[in-house]
Amino acid sequence: MRKSKLDQCQNIEDLRKAARRRAHKMVFDYIDGGADDEKTLAGNSSAFDKYSLLFRVLTGVDEVDTSITLLGQKMDQPFFCSPSAGNRLFHTEGERAVAKAAAAAGVVYCLSTLSSVSMEEIAALTTGPKWFQLYVWKDRGLVKEMLDRARAAGYRALILTVDLPIAGNRERDPRNGFTIPPHYGPRQTFEALKAPFWTLDYLTGAPIKYANLSADTPAVSLADFVAEQLHAGFNWRDAEWLLGEWNGPAVIKGVVRDDDARQAAALGFNAVMISNHGGRQLDHSPAPIDVLEEIVQAVGDKVEIILDGGVRRGTDILKALSLGATAVSFARPYLYGLAGGGEPGVKRALTIMAEAVRRDMALMGVRSLEEIDASFIRLIP
Amino acid sequence: MRKSKLDQCQNIEDLRKAARRRAHKMVFDYIDGGADDEKTLAGNSSAFDKYSLLFRVLTGVDEVDTSITLLGQKMDQPFFCSPSAGNRLFHTEGERAVAKAAAAAGVVYCLSTLSSVSMEEIAALTTGPKWFQLYVWKDRGLVKEMLDRARAAGYRALILTVDLPIAGNRERDPRNGFTIPPHYGPRQTFEALKAPFWTLDYLTGAPIKYANLSADTPAVSLADFVAEQLHAGFNWRDAEWLLGEWNGPAVIKGVVRDDDARQAAALGFNAVMISNHGGRQLDHSPAPIDVLEEIVQAVGDKVEIILDGGVRRGTDILKALSLGATAVSFARPYLYGLAGGGEPGVKRALTIMAEAVRRDMALMGVRSLEEIDASFIRLIP
Amino acid sequence: MRKSKLDQCQNIEDLRKAARRRAHKMVFDYIDGGADDEKTLAGNSSAFDKYSLLFRVLTGVDEVDTSITLLGQKMDQPFFCSPSAGNRLFHTEGERAVAKAAAAAGVVYCLSTLSSVSMEEIAALTTGPKWFQLYVWKDRGLVKEMLDRARAAGYRALILTVDLPIAGNRERDPRNGFTIPPHYGPRQTFEALKAPFWTLDYLTGAPIKYANLSADTPAVSLADFVAEQLHAGFNWRDAEWLLGEWNGPAVIKGVVRDDDARQAAALGFNAVMISNHGGRQLDHSPAPIDVLEEIVQAVGDKVEIILDGGVRRGTDILKALSLGATAVSFARPYLYGLAGGGEPGVKRALTIMAEAVRRDMALMGVRSLEEIDASFIRLIP
Amino acid sequence: MRKSKLDQCQNIEDLRKAARRRAHKMVFDYIDGGADDEKTLAGNSSAFDKYSLLFRVLTGVDEVDTSITLLGQKMDQPFFCSPSAGNRLFHTEGERAVAKAAAAAGVVYCLSTLSSVSMEEIAALTTGPKWFQLYVWKDRGLVKEMLDRARAAGYRALILTVDLPIAGNRERDPRNGFTIPPHYGPRQTFEALKAPFWTLDYLTGAPIKYANLSADTPAVSLADFVAEQLHAGFNWRDAEWLLGEWNGPAVIKGVVRDDDARQAAALGFNAVMISNHGGRQLDHSPAPIDVLEEIVQAVGDKVEIILDGGVRRGTDILKALSLGATAVSFARPYLYGLAGGGEPGVKRALTIMAEAVRRDMALMGVRSLEEIDASFIRLIP
Repeated sequence: MRKSKLDQCQNIEDLRKAARRRAHKMVFDYIDGGADDEKTLAGNSSAFDKYSLLFRVLTGVDEVDTSITLLGQKMDQPFFCSPSAGNRLFHTEGERAVAKAAAAAGVVYCLSTLSSVSMEEIAALTTGPKWFQLYVWKDRGLVKEMLDRARAAGYRALILTVDLPIAGNRERDPRNGFTIPPHYGPRQTFEALKAPFWTLDYLTGAPIKYANLSADTPAVSLADFVAEQLHAGFNWRDAEWLLGEWNGPAVIKGVVRDDDARQAAALGFNAVMISNHGGRQLDHSPAPIDVLEEIVQAVGDKVEIILDGGVRRGTDILKALSLGATAVSFARPYLYGLAGGGEPGVKRALTIMAEAVRRDMALMGVRSLEEIDASFIRLIP
Repeated sequence: MRKSKLDQCQNIEDLRKAARRRAHKMVFDYIDGGADDEKTLAGNSSAFDKYSLLFRVLTGVDEVDTSITLLGQKMDQPFFCSPSAGNRLFHTEGERAVAKAAAAAGVVYCLSTLSSVSMEEIAALTTGPKWFQLYVWKDRGLVKEMLDRARAAGYRALILTVDLPIAGNRERDPRNGFTIPPHYGPRQTFEALKAPFWTLDYLTGAPIKYANLSADTPAVSLADFVAEQLHAGFNWRDAEWLLGEWNGPAVIKGVVRDDDARQAAALGFNAVMISNHGGRQLDHSPAPIDVLEEIVQAVGDKVEIILDGGVRRGTDILKALSLGATAVSFARPYLYGLAGGGEPGVKRALTIMAEAVRRDMALMGVRSLEEIDASFIRLIP
Repeated sequence: MRKSKLDQCQNIEDLRKAARRRAHKMVFDYIDGGADDEKTLAGNSSAFDKYSLLFRVLTGVDEVDTSITLLGQKMDQPFFCSPSAGNRLFHTEGERAVAKAAAAAGVVYCLSTLSSVSMEEIAALTTGPKWFQLYVWKDRGLVKEMLDRARAAGYRALILTVDLPIAGNRERDPRNGFTIPPHYGPRQTFEALKAPFWTLDYLTGAPIKYANLSADTPAVSLADFVAEQLHAGFNWRDAEWLLGEWNGPAVIKGVVRDDDARQAAALGFNAVMISNHGGRQLDHSPAPIDVLEEIVQAVGDKVEIILDGGVRRGTDILKALSLGATAVSFARPYLYGLAGGGEPGVKRALTIMAEAVRRDMALMGVRSLEEIDASFIRLIP
Repeated sequence: MRKSKLDQCQNIEDLRKAARRRAHKMVFDYIDGGADDEKTLAGNSSAFDKYSLLFRVLTGVDEVDTSITLLGQKMDQPFFCSPSAGNRLFHTEGERAVAKAAAAAGVVYCLSTLSSVSMEEIAALTTGPKWFQLYVWKDRGLVKEMLDRARAAGYRALILTVDLPIAGNRERDPRNGFTIPPHYGPRQTFEALKAPFWTLDYLTGAPIKYANLSADTPAVSLADFVAEQLHAGFNWRDAEWLLGEWNGPAVIKGVVRDDDARQAAALGFNAVMISNHGGRQLDHSPAPIDVLEEIVQAVGDKVEIILDGGVRRGTDILKALSLGATAVSFARPYLYGLAGGGEPGVKRALTIMAEAVRRDMALMGVRSLEEIDASFIRLIP
């Protein structure tokens, strides 16, 4: 998609349509889909609609400061990109595009364990702050190796994802015959004709693999890969061991219960990411916005709270902050941008969000994000 | 439907489509339909969507045990197949297919009074545990004879169905001219052309009849059959007499009120099945999941509680267990499988459910079903 | 519509379709439509869906008694036909059909002031109980004359309609160019071609007029007729005068507030009909079922409560009775029957309802209507 | 649209359709659209549907008085036209049509700062009461000049709009390439062919400009114009200064919080307009009807409360008055009229509303608006 076309994308839904046009169906569906009946996928976003924002007037909003401090680091925006696997699947620029766009937007970049570009290459690409996301591998040696490499490469914080002990039931993927990396049968080849630019990139680009692993990536379903490689038995004691090994700022991602948040805070995590993995794991998980307030009440004075899931508009972000989140993160918005237009697409996604936050803060009568509190939000009767 | 096609059915809705393709319209509608405006039919399932599941993390779920104990018997799954009448209507393999699939899945098989294969033949077919479902016949001699035969054949528990004193108003059936066994007029013949495999089976198979009755089954509407044969005046005193006659484990099926549950427990029933007969009897009956909690509070310490109605996903099952049910049962899921593909279809239905329970337990952070409690579930605000 | 076709109508919606096929569009729309955006019209029915019915089991329902006592008179059913104007518009048999069907069903017949058959002719037609509905005419002499005639003709109770001080804003009627009696312009003539049987009846039948008025009925809109003839200034003192003039059993129709119900009871009315005129007057009036409970609590020990509005199913009736109504009434169900098939159509409507009440009582475990109470009903969570 | 056609418009939705037919797409969309996902736009109206109106009977409504007193002035109706910018865009008669229609209806006329006819010309056009709406310009000299001119021209009250520190994100406008005044590119020219009458008027009429500004109006987006000209930093202290400069009756428009309403009352505003700018500014703002009650409780004894937003029916107006509003205002209803048919169209809109208020008061049993209170309204369960 040309830059001028991308600039006409006014919102994330426009970028989603761009992604659907450009990407192979199985790739678009992998980004777009969720588990089972996709109730949580839909609910993550629609739950925001149950809340209204009570704007304040005459506060003088000629200057609006969108920055926050997160894990001690200044960020220009109260949002960042959630880690996501195998970005080169979506566009040949892959994680490189996202890392550069994040740095340009002044927000932290979070690299996935399962990235398709190595952590060292990404680390060298920009000077922006970076965090490293970890899945729990069965092989403890591999975990320690990854922690060492991440620390050496300058990743400042660790994100431990805990809501994927096994893979969720994403029905679009087997229906499309989707594997990572893609396997091309007759059906996939036929669908490729509808996505010529993506296909050309894919065929002429470097093979897609999990770049942080030494072994080649086998073309298997995500469910099989997860079952074979990840450690479903990982528990709080293992997490304690991991925190000791890392010995640095740490974030736990995938919590929806206040008792789990308390446990994480007690163990030494510095931030809790409320997340249900974008509706891709347990369908009927609660929408993050619906459990935010109680988790803030439980541990908001001890750790930072990040809401991940369903965010599509600036108002979603400001609702989360009204209920006590320090920041929000999202994946699909930038992945739609990536699949629809590479680095300019990701930048467009982040620009849309940044402009929305600034505009919506002004419309709410909020000059800095510290002024936001629960008086701005309520459930619609 | 070929086995490979069945394996592509990822969920119960896929099996429902398979059933619609293969079975005669009047047969599919008999399975699929409900009473009046089918509000309860739809509500049984959609009521589950009002609840979300608050999964737990880092509990270590490398091993997940899906088994339960029900009426003192170990079952490999927390679900089983509700009894249903005349299964040979749906597929020539009929109750035989379901009994074999239940045994293979390690769950109890419940034979209907109105089965189209005799209780003795089914009893001899597998070594799995079996229960016998009883409608209350006007003829007390017939009731006693059935109890004797069931006991002799090894059926361990009795299920007394109490929500069918008369037949509900299922409007699809008269619209289709449906009777049991089917009567073929011009319209039925025309529709048969769209269901050639079903029709071939039906025409070449043994005549369909209620196999536990000595008399031949007349081709009448269900409403007329019920009115003529079943005892609408059957009451708690009669139930007490019946329990005395049976003198074994007994389940009451079709309760939605806590006072009825209390009465059943006081009378000596060992389990209460919360059910509205799948929305086929009184439309606007409450969804079982919506009355579960109060019935658990009323009698959960005295009897076992089984939720029957609307279950289509593993999460539905785990929601019921979170609210205190010991097990759930369902009919349409396996009947879609049966109508869509015979025994392999039923097995596919049970496999889908078993895999979902295992996966969803892991995603909820639950290693054994005893760990589930009400903290996992809540109404969406 | 032939008798055999009518017998295939399984529910009121089927009769509604029959009416739409047979009647002139402007006539069908006059029956079918409501005020403004028809929110109350739709809400009257859909409000019932918010409640579920908690059936009781094992009560012994071989015999079910559907009768009630209303204003001291035994009725075979807990429902009756609300009065409605100008029935010969809908079918040439008009009020005669309804009166005969009501008598056959064993329920009271309520004749409208604005009937198209005279009160004396209807009185002579059947031996069934009859009530007379009164609008408040500007001309007090006319009111007294009507009361005298009604008393003389044997109408036992008076229904005073109070929710029509002026006509509601029914937008379908002016859109169709509808007047009473109909005026035929080019558009009406064109539409008449689609309703040949209705048109033939209309053209060959006696002219339609308000048969209780000595003057001929002018072809004007209902709004104009009401504004000219009815007394918008009629108030509680006038009602007191009217009760004195009538000096017999009296019902007030069109109440939705408990304070109005209290006032009516204090003044001497014997029954309160909760009604919003079928959603034809003030749009956004509350659904009768939603205000029933508080009116029962206010005056249920002093007067009888009749719910009018939105009833389409037996379960609707039994919900109203569960919340304390003595009876329900409805108009559209029998008017669809009348417009779709004359007297057999009305009979079909009443039979559908009677069978549904009997069946649903049995399914609820209720042998007589005195057994029904609030334990049977609740709002769905 | 011819007068006879306008008279057939029975409601505001009919006028909306007339506007869509007559006006250029970009102009219709400018009127019709809202911010972001237009949730607040839709919610402003649909929120009224959550409330029902409990009408009173037998109060004697032969005479109904729809008048109110607002800021000490008698108005024939409890509604008036909200100020709106650049009306000559919608129809060549522009603000002149609206001012004349308002005078004819006996309600105040509110001229926008950004009117396309000068305040002096409008002032001279009718003898009806007029208020002047002010945006806060960066140029304080311009503000003082406008106040002086408004006072001199006889505008009696000032409306300060406070919910537009910057422009909202109205996505239809850039999609249509809409600017004020319109810029005609190929796409706009093509669309013009579908709106020949509007286009002819536009091409032959005087150039459209903001008539209260000395400078010519540049063809830029509203967002750019607002950012350049209006003072986003305007705050409560500035408002205090403004009240001092004006020294007359003053209304604050765009408040949804009770604390802001308290602050406005304390500062000396005489009335609070609850408004979210018709859903054109911050999407997910609350519907005015949903925050009305608490603002009435907070300041209803000190200032008058005007509800602005979502009003389409007489019942909407009476709901707002039941909850304590003194009056309501609306813009789209009369703008649809204007775009659909010029002055007769505006008059039709106001007549529809006036007739509805009178009719609905009678149907509610209310003879004067002072009789309305909270007993008439409730949330539907």
